[in-house]
Amino acid sequence: MSERPLYIQVNPRDNVAIIVNAGGLEPGAEFSSGLALVESIPQSHKVALENILEGAPVVRYGEVIGQAARNIPRGAWVSEELVTLPDAPSLESAPLATAVPPPPPALDGFTFEGYRNADGTVGTKNLLGITTTVQCVAPTVEFAVRRIRAEILPRYPHVDDVLALTYPYGCGVAINAPGAEIPIRTIANYARNPNFAGDPLVVSLGCEKMQPARLTGAGLPVLHDEPWLVRLQDEQYFGFGDMVEAIMNLAEKRIARLSRRERVTCPASDLVVGLQCGGSDAFSGVTANPAVGYAADLLVRAGATVMFSEVTEVRDAIHLLTPRAASPDVATALIGEMKWYDDYLRRGGADRSANPTPGNKRGGLANIVEKALGSIAKSGSTAIQAVASPGERVSAKGLVFLATPASDFICGTLQTAAGMNMHVFTTGEGTPYGLAAVPVIKVSSRTELAERWPDLIDVDAGAIATGLATIEGVGWEIFRFILGAASGRKKTWSDYWGLHNAPALFNPAPVT
Amino acid sequence: MSERPLYIQVNPRDNVAIIVNAGGLEPGAEFSSGLALVESIPQSHKVALENILEGAPVVRYGEVIGQAARNIPRGAWVSEELVTLPDAPSLESAPLATAVPPPPPALDGFTFEGYRNADGTVGTKNLLGITTTVQCVAPTVEFAVRRIRAEILPRYPHVDDVLALTYPYGCGVAINAPGAEIPIRTIANYARNPNFAGDPLVVSLGCEKMQPARLTGAGLPVLHDEPWLVRLQDEQYFGFGDMVEAIMNLAEKRIARLSRRERVTCPASDLVVGLQCGGSDAFSGVTANPAVGYAADLLVRAGATVMFSEVTEVRDAIHLLTPRAASPDVATALIGEMKWYDDYLRRGGADRSANPTPGNKRGGLANIVEKALGSIAKSGSTAIQAVASPGERVSAKGLVFLATPASDFICGTLQTAAGMNMHVFTTGEGTPYGLAAVPVIKVSSRTELAERWPDLIDVDAGAIATGLATIEGVGWEIFRFILGAASGRKKTWSDYWGLHNAPALFNPAPVT
Repeated sequence: MSERPLYIQVNPRDNVAIIVNAGGLEPGAEFSSGLALVESIPQSHKVALENILEGAPVVRYGEVIGQAARNIPRGAWVSEELVTLPDAPSLESAPLATAVPPPPPALDGFTFEGYRNADGTVGTKNLLGITTTVQCVAPTVEFAVRRIRAEILPRYPHVDDVLALTYPYGCGVAINAPGAEIPIRTIANYARNPNFAGDPLVVSLGCEKMQPARLTGAGLPVLHDEPWLVRLQDEQYFGFGDMVEAIMNLAEKRIARLSRRERVTCPASDLVVGLQCGGSDAFSGVTANPAVGYAADLLVRAGATVMFSEVTEVRDAIHLLTPRAASPDVATALIGEMKWYDDYLRRGGADRSANPTPGNKRGGLANIVEKALGSIAKSGSTAIQAVASPGERVSAKGLVFLATPASDFICGTLQTAAGMNMHVFTTGEGTPYGLAAVPVIKVSSRTELAERWPDLIDVDAGAIATGLATIEGVGWEIFRFILGAASGRKKTWSDYWGLHNAPALFNPAPVT
Repeated sequence: MSERPLYIQVNPRDNVAIIVNAGGLEPGAEFSSGLALVESIPQSHKVALENILEGAPVVRYGEVIGQAARNIPRGAWVSEELVTLPDAPSLESAPLATAVPPPPPALDGFTFEGYRNADGTVGTKNLLGITTTVQCVAPTVEFAVRRIRAEILPRYPHVDDVLALTYPYGCGVAINAPGAEIPIRTIANYARNPNFAGDPLVVSLGCEKMQPARLTGAGLPVLHDEPWLVRLQDEQYFGFGDMVEAIMNLAEKRIARLSRRERVTCPASDLVVGLQCGGSDAFSGVTANPAVGYAADLLVRAGATVMFSEVTEVRDAIHLLTPRAASPDVATALIGEMKWYDDYLRRGGADRSANPTPGNKRGGLANIVEKALGSIAKSGSTAIQAVASPGERVSAKGLVFLATPASDFICGTLQTAAGMNMHVFTTGEGTPYGLAAVPVIKVSSRTELAERWPDLIDVDAGAIATGLATIEGVGWEIFRFILGAASGRKKTWSDYWGLHNAPALFNPAPVT
């Protein structure tokens, strides 16, 4: 990045700004504004633009991110411990749909090449997913999948892969307890992700608590007359060899069917894009996330579905989101998800201060308020059309809030279950994240990261910080990358290396 | 099994018995006792030995398993819905160490061939385990493990395997919430299982909540001067290739060290055997579990450590266990674990009725009381010497209660973390369960299962039901199988096929 001292002030009301220069700046460093540092400040950490008195608000993004713990002189480092955590925004007084953005201008003519499914969804990969009802059967299905990959897939080059969808769930759980519906519907909806052709194949043990009927009851479809279920305890199977053969036989029928499909031209409105951030830093909210937000606006304009998530990372900015809800009902649903999570954390003896991470703090994020203000930039500027609960499938078009934990793996799993066919992931500290089911485009918030991880980062948004790139420009780059990867023309780095995080369930109910 | 009608009455006080005959029995079937069935009863389900009046106790194992929901005539099927669930035994009035079994006679001269570790423990496999601090790094470590298996392991035939120890944990969790200590110490202690030579190698991302220092603080040892940690975000790594190379380099040093080890003769007292049941039926408590209990007694007599677990499956028999505690302190600790779990379930809106499973019920188990009475038979007859909490390492010799959920995968993970080097698993309905870290000996409660799954069941205890085998005989068979598998002389079916359930954490704390 630039050699001359540079900071980013997001909003004219801000009394702090973040240091852009790689390696940070030393005392005496002077900015073009005339501000001079009185102490050294690491990159992406905050400098006081004016004297901030003890107890006075610290303002970034035009919002109060906390109060000064003591007097902070102009030019000093506003480090994490100098910013006291304010109360969370009130849910009772949040404004409901008071500033609904008008529909954005339509963006026509953008298409991608996808696999159209019987249920109307479109796949961006052509995968067989083998769903499991209980972890007991996981090693058997994994064994079968190894053989399928070696013996069957080579004959069907149009099929991308076969995946064992396994979970530490299905038995030894309080399956009727409050919250148990979340993992059950997650597994059911994950099984019908568009990239599995919306067409589940299920392996069950037989004696488990999560009987297959619980999955069909939670929305798992049965599309064919042909068998869709292997139950290992069934008396027809004599030993392990029979079980594996049964799975392989059913799998080959499905693979043959998948192999006959061709990519067809689909409008961009068939995209269902999940947005997430992980390993964020103070740049995330000014480079990668706003660029993704711009891409989100383009997608919404093209008629697509765009999901943003991560309850604990929007909770402290909820007063900025409820006005954008398309209706008071949508705003109320949004508040309902926040309340549910507040209660969930309280029941577990935790609160919102459990976020951010050590790495977020190292990256300059003082607390969850500052993190949330940066996080919601991913949502762009359009109206929030719908709200979905964890594990639910999303059918609305436009911008949707899907309530999930902020955990990368759990959020990715829940967005997959919601029907995501493309995933965009922003990172500041860097993580070699990926999903087997859906292409993951990783966007860096800092150019240093993109340069150090050239074979993991797909798009660099860092140059926005120095003015060498614009939010709009990187936003268009992400939008085009989505269309390319959705068409199978561009390969994400995680797919290139086969870096795929296992599905991780959100189960708020007890195990037994 | 036998053609002539046969039932098993466990205790002379019992007013019910279970049907032995495969396929069940029809009305009119007459037993040698003169009892005739008044309706058909499936195998392993209960027959009334006398008229049981509505509200009268239903007695099995000499214990009340419930009250009759209506009058049940002699010879009728005492099905699940005819047995009302009684209250759980009081924890306040449980007798403390009132009937401590005397030390059993020593059993000398039994040995096995194991890998002696620097910390004094003994491995039964020679494995490199690569611990991960956060799921973000899992696909990278799995990538490295695939390459290590292909490129390094073939040069070190004395090393059995290298395992990526991955968990959906480490970030996106409330890491300071009550209960979070459980998954953290589980990961730390799992890393130093004797079968990993007690010698962890760790891959961290860098920005995660579960910093490596949390693992060392929870007991993860650092045995060498050589590096034991790769942190992917460290600036020295330029891209994915560097990261993988760093992991492979460290792994090869460890593999070379492991490869120089030889099996040596160790006394049976170096065994740490974890007991578990899964997919139980009404035979489990009269065939497989008592035989395992007999083997447990042999192991205790030989000076070994034997762990039994599964809080929800001992809770209803706790009044039979607290008298056997070696001291009032041990009994109090046992009660403490029951209370903790009662509270945990209550907080989650569940209770003990969340167990048993549909398969347990199909297998004739009316409720958790009957299941628990059969389950504790695994503990044999010796004094309970110590109690450990979930995730803790066990150092005591003799019979130990390790508090875990009954979930097979979680219990297996926690027993591995406790230091288990051999695992015995009983099953009635059948499950192709296995662990990568520790050999798993699967014992069937019914001969039908052993005959139908000849390539999955290691030991059949079913013949005990027909008198063709004895508890003592099968107990000795299990004991000898343990010594053989611990020595690498016998291979369990799960290791033969490579059927290995992934570690599953017990995390009572919230995710964020």
